[in-house]
Amino acid sequence: MRLEVWAPLARSVEVVGADGVRRMPLARGEHGLWRAEVPAGFLDAGYRFALDGGEPRPDPRSRWQPDGPHGASRPVDETGLRRHRRAGFRPAALREAVFYELHVGTFTPEGSYAAAREKLPHLAALGVTHVELMPLATFPGRHGWGYDGVAWYAPHPAYGTPEGLAAFVGHCHAHGLGVLLDVVYNHFGPDGCYAPAYGPYLTDRWKTPWGPAVNYDGRHADGVREFAIGNALMWLRDYGFDGLRLDAVHAIVDTGARHLLEELAERVLALGRELDREFVVIAESDLNDPRLVRPPALGGYGLDAHWCDDFHHALHAVLTRERAGYYEDFGSLAQLAAALRDGYVFQGQYSAFRGRRHGRPPEGVRPEQLVVFAQNHDQVGNRARGERLSQLLAPERLRAAAALTLLSPFTPLLFQGEEWGARTPFLFFADHQDPALARAVSEGRRSEFAPFGWNGEVPDPQAPETFLGSRLDWDERGRPAHAALLAWHRRLLALRRARRVAPGERPDVRFDEAEGWIAWRLGDVFAACNLSDAPRAVPFPDGAWQLALAEPAPAAAGAPIPAGATAVFTRGTG
Amino acid sequence: MRLEVWAPLARSVEVVGADGVRRMPLARGEHGLWRAEVPAGFLDAGYRFALDGGEPRPDPRSRWQPDGPHGASRPVDETGLRRHRRAGFRPAALREAVFYELHVGTFTPEGSYAAAREKLPHLAALGVTHVELMPLATFPGRHGWGYDGVAWYAPHPAYGTPEGLAAFVGHCHAHGLGVLLDVVYNHFGPDGCYAPAYGPYLTDRWKTPWGPAVNYDGRHADGVREFAIGNALMWLRDYGFDGLRLDAVHAIVDTGARHLLEELAERVLALGRELDREFVVIAESDLNDPRLVRPPALGGYGLDAHWCDDFHHALHAVLTRERAGYYEDFGSLAQLAAALRDGYVFQGQYSAFRGRRHGRPPEGVRPEQLVVFAQNHDQVGNRARGERLSQLLAPERLRAAAALTLLSPFTPLLFQGEEWGARTPFLFFADHQDPALARAVSEGRRSEFAPFGWNGEVPDPQAPETFLGSRLDWDERGRPAHAALLAWHRRLLALRRARRVAPGERPDVRFDEAEGWIAWRLGDVFAACNLSDAPRAVPFPDGAWQLALAEPAPAAAGAPIPAGATAVFTRGTG
Repeated sequence: MRLEVWAPLARSVEVVGADGVRRMPLARGEHGLWRAEVPAGFLDAGYRFALDGGEPRPDPRSRWQPDGPHGASRPVDETGLRRHRRAGFRPAALREAVFYELHVGTFTPEGSYAAAREKLPHLAALGVTHVELMPLATFPGRHGWGYDGVAWYAPHPAYGTPEGLAAFVGHCHAHGLGVLLDVVYNHFGPDGCYAPAYGPYLTDRWKTPWGPAVNYDGRHADGVREFAIGNALMWLRDYGFDGLRLDAVHAIVDTGARHLLEELAERVLALGRELDREFVVIAESDLNDPRLVRPPALGGYGLDAHWCDDFHHALHAVLTRERAGYYEDFGSLAQLAAALRDGYVFQGQYSAFRGRRHGRPPEGVRPEQLVVFAQNHDQVGNRARGERLSQLLAPERLRAAAALTLLSPFTPLLFQGEEWGARTPFLFFADHQDPALARAVSEGRRSEFAPFGWNGEVPDPQAPETFLGSRLDWDERGRPAHAALLAWHRRLLALRRARRVAPGERPDVRFDEAEGWIAWRLGDVFAACNLSDAPRAVPFPDGAWQLALAEPAPAAAGAPIPAGATAVFTRGTG
Repeated sequence: MRLEVWAPLARSVEVVGADGVRRMPLARGEHGLWRAEVPAGFLDAGYRFALDGGEPRPDPRSRWQPDGPHGASRPVDETGLRRHRRAGFRPAALREAVFYELHVGTFTPEGSYAAAREKLPHLAALGVTHVELMPLATFPGRHGWGYDGVAWYAPHPAYGTPEGLAAFVGHCHAHGLGVLLDVVYNHFGPDGCYAPAYGPYLTDRWKTPWGPAVNYDGRHADGVREFAIGNALMWLRDYGFDGLRLDAVHAIVDTGARHLLEELAERVLALGRELDREFVVIAESDLNDPRLVRPPALGGYGLDAHWCDDFHHALHAVLTRERAGYYEDFGSLAQLAAALRDGYVFQGQYSAFRGRRHGRPPEGVRPEQLVVFAQNHDQVGNRARGERLSQLLAPERLRAAAALTLLSPFTPLLFQGEEWGARTPFLFFADHQDPALARAVSEGRRSEFAPFGWNGEVPDPQAPETFLGSRLDWDERGRPAHAALLAWHRRLLALRRARRVAPGERPDVRFDEAEGWIAWRLGDVFAACNLSDAPRAVPFPDGAWQLALAEPAPAAAGAPIPAGATAVFTRGTG
C-alpha cells in the first residue's frame, strides 16, 4: 500500500505501527513529499509518523481517526467508499436549487448519519434540492459545530464511519437530493492539530480571528494549498458530495497572483469534467465582493456562489427590530428592498458597524450566485441563547420571512427545523477535552456577550445539556402551529418551482417605509408582505393576478393586504 | 485659513501656535474630521495639534516641515505652487516613454532641485521622456533614500523648498520631460511618524517587512485611504507631477472589495479628466500579477503599468553569472528570451528562491505596461557595496544590457548615471538622528549580508562618506570610455524612437543557450547580442536588413556577429 506524507523540512520520516515498535522509513521525494510502499496489514491497526526520530504523531492527511485527533490514523478503502455512488444522479442546477443546512449531531436525537437518513423523505417532501452538512473534519471531543476541525481528511467519528458517510450521501442521491459539505480552510482548530508539526502550514504574516492564518502564499505554500485542494477533491470524488461550502473565505489570505480560491475552483471544475459530474463551490464571505463568483477571464475566482449576509441582516433587522451588533447598519425597508433586488445592501457605502465603507456593486453576479437565508447555524447559534426566529417573532412574521427568502431571485437556504418553526434552540456547544481550553471556551462565551449588556444566563458551551438541548425535537413537527408553518414552506417551495423567471431577472420591488409593506414581482409571481397592523393597499403590477397563497387572505387580487398578511399571486392565464 | 485634521478617536483637538501658548479649538465634523478657520498669520510661524489636551504634535498632513518631521508644521501656498505649471505641456505617452530614475540628493554634488535643474539638458539630449524622482516625503536627518518618509505631504527640506520643487517640475516640462514621483504607501518610517497618534493608521492584522501594515481595510480605514489617495492627488495637482510610482505594492494589504490601488487609480483618472491632463500610475510589484494593470471591468486595478523584476533578474543573472539570493532562480538565455517576450519569467512555475509557485501568465498586459531596467536604485543599492553593472561587467556586456532593455517592447527605465556607466556606487545610506535607530540600521546592514558569506567590508549607511560617495561624478561623463557608452545609449534611444512597432506587438526571440547568443526582431528592428567569445552565425529574419548600430560591427547584415558584439539592424527599404 502506498503511503505518502508532506514534510518539507524533515530530515527523516518513519511510519510507526500501532504497537509503537514496528517502524518503516519513508523515502524523500520531490517538493517535500515522503513515500513508502508498506504491507497492507501494517497500517490497518493504526499508524503514526515519526519525524527526525521524534515522537510519533497522527497523519495530517489521515482518512480515519476513530479515537479522535490524538489517536492513531487508519487507512480507508476509497474504492469501497466510491461504491456507494449512484451512477447517473444529477443534482438540481443552481437556478433550481434550495439548500437545507443540517448538523449531523443535532439533526436527530441519535446524531448519526444512519438516523439522518430516516429523515430524507421529509426533506424530499419539503421540496429542498440539496442537503448541506456542517463540517465533518475530526475535532476533539464528541460534540461540536465542527469549525474547529483538525484532521481535515477524516470524518468525525461520532457521526458514523467513513463508509457510513458515503452511504448517507448515496441515500440522499436516492431521494433526489444533492449533498454539499461545509469545509473550513481558513484555520485549524486549537486542539489536536498535528499538521504544523509536519510543515509550515501556518504563517504569522496574516492574522485571523482564530490566530495565525493558514500559509497559502508564503514559503512552502504549494504543499499547504495541495492540502486544502486535495481535501476538497477527496470529499467530491470519494464520498460523492456534489459541492462544498467554504467557511469564511475572507479569513483566507492569499496575496499571490493566483488566489487559492481560484485554483480550487479550477481544480474542482477539472474533476467534474473527469467524472462527468457538476460540482458547485460556494463561499461564505462577508466581503460583498463580486470577484468571488466572476469568471477568471473577468478577474474573478470562478466560484459558483457565495453566501449573502446583507440579505439576512436586512430581513432580520426589519422583522425583529433588533439593532445590536451588525444589525446597527440595518432596519429599513429600503435596505430590505435593495437586498431583494441586488443581494448586497452595502455596495461601497459607509457601514457604522465596520467603521468604514464596505462592499462594491454586484456587477456580473447572477441572482442564483447569492445564497440567502432568514436563519442559519451562525445567525441562530451566535445569539447568547441560540434563539431561532420562531422564538422571536409572531407566526405572521415567520411567514413573511419565508416568502421573502424563498421567493427571492437568489438561492435560498433553510436551517434544520426552520421549516416547522422548531422551538429548540441551536446553541454554541463544544466538548473540548483539554481542561484549560474547555475553561477558556466557557469563559470566552460568557465574556463575548458582556459588552452587549447581556445580563441573562449564557448557556455553557461545554455543558452536555447545551448540546442535548440543541437537538431537533421531531415531535413538534406534527403539532398544529408547526404543521401549518411547514405547509407554508412547502407551498412556497412549490410556487418557487413552478414560477417562470428569466435568467438573470431581478425583481421589481416596491415598499412603503411609513406604511410598513414591501411587495415584489419576479417573473410571473407577485408577493406582498404587510408588516403593519392595519390593512394596506399595495399597488399591483400590470396584468391579471390570481391569489395563490395567503395568510390571512385578502378579498381578491388587487384588494388591500390584511394586517400582518403575506400574500402571493400568480399571473392569470386570461 | 481653513485647517482640517482627521482624528476619529480624539475627544478634542486644538491647534497650537509656534510659541506653544496660542491655541484654538477645532470643531468635530463628520467621519472623524476636525476643522477650524484660523487667521492666516496664526500658522505661518509653525503650528502643531494637541489631541485631548496632550502634547502638541506636527500635522500628519503638514505641507512643509522645514525643521524635519519632529519640527513644527507650516502651511504652503498651493496657488503659488500651481503657478509653476506650464499650461499645455503633454508628457510622452507610455508607448513612447523612457524613464530616468534619480535621487535628488545624489544626482548632483549639491543634492538640490536647483542643481538638478542644470542637468536637464543632458537628459533631454539623452532621449529619455520622463524623470522619476525617488521619494520626497520628509524623513528624519538630511540624507536618505526616502523610503522611510513619515510626513507624506511635506517635501524633504534638504532638497529645497516646496516652491523649489514645483519650479523644478516646471523646468522639466520646459525641457519636454514629464516627471514622476516615487511614493511609499506601504509603510511609515520608524522615526518621526506622528500619524498613528492621530488615528488608526496602522493595523496588526497584516505584517510587512517593515512592521505593522498600513490600515487600508480595517475599522476607520476610510480616513487612512484618503490620507494616501489625497497625497497622490496633491503631488499631481499642486506640484505638477505627471504620474506616480507606487513603492512595493505587494506590501499594501487590502482584503476589501475595492482595493486601495483600484480606488487610487480611479481618483487619479478623475483628476486627469478634471484638469485635462494624462497621469500615469505605476506600481512596483513582485507579484507577476496582471490584475494590477488590467482594467476594472476585467477585474483589474486599472493601474497604467508595473515594474517587472523578472526582466531585470533574467538579464542580470545571464550577464553577471551571479546566482546568489533571488538570482538562484535565473541564469538561462531561455529565461531571458521569455522575459523579452512576456516580461514575466515566472508565470506559475516553482521558484526555488520563494519556495513556492509564483506568478501567472501576463494575460491582457500590453508591453508598455511593464517597466524594465538593467539597473535601478534597489538592484544597485541593495548590494553590499552598491556596485553598478559598470563595476561588474566589461563594456560589451554593458552595451548588450542597454540594447536588451532599450530595444525591448517594454517601457525602459535608466538609473542615474547608467547612461555613461558611472563608476560611483549607489550605496544604502541614512542619517537617522535617533541613536538607537542609527545603531540598528548600521548593524542591520552588516548582518543582512552575513548569511551570504559576505566577508568584505559593508559600508556603514550612517557614515557621511557613504552618502557622499554615492553622488554622481559628472566629470566622468566626458572621459572616452564613458562618453562612448553615453553615445551608445543615445543612439539606442534614437533607434527606439524611430522604430515602427504595432500596438501590442511582441518580439520574435531566438537564442542558443550553448552558443551564447540571443537575437530578437520587433517591428522593423532586429538586434543580436553575442555573449560568447567567438563569432556566431545568427539566423536573420526574412527581409532586407541594414546595419544601424554595432560594436564591434559585423561585416554586413547576415554575416556572423563578432565575439561580444551587440548589433542592431533596421529593415531596409529595398
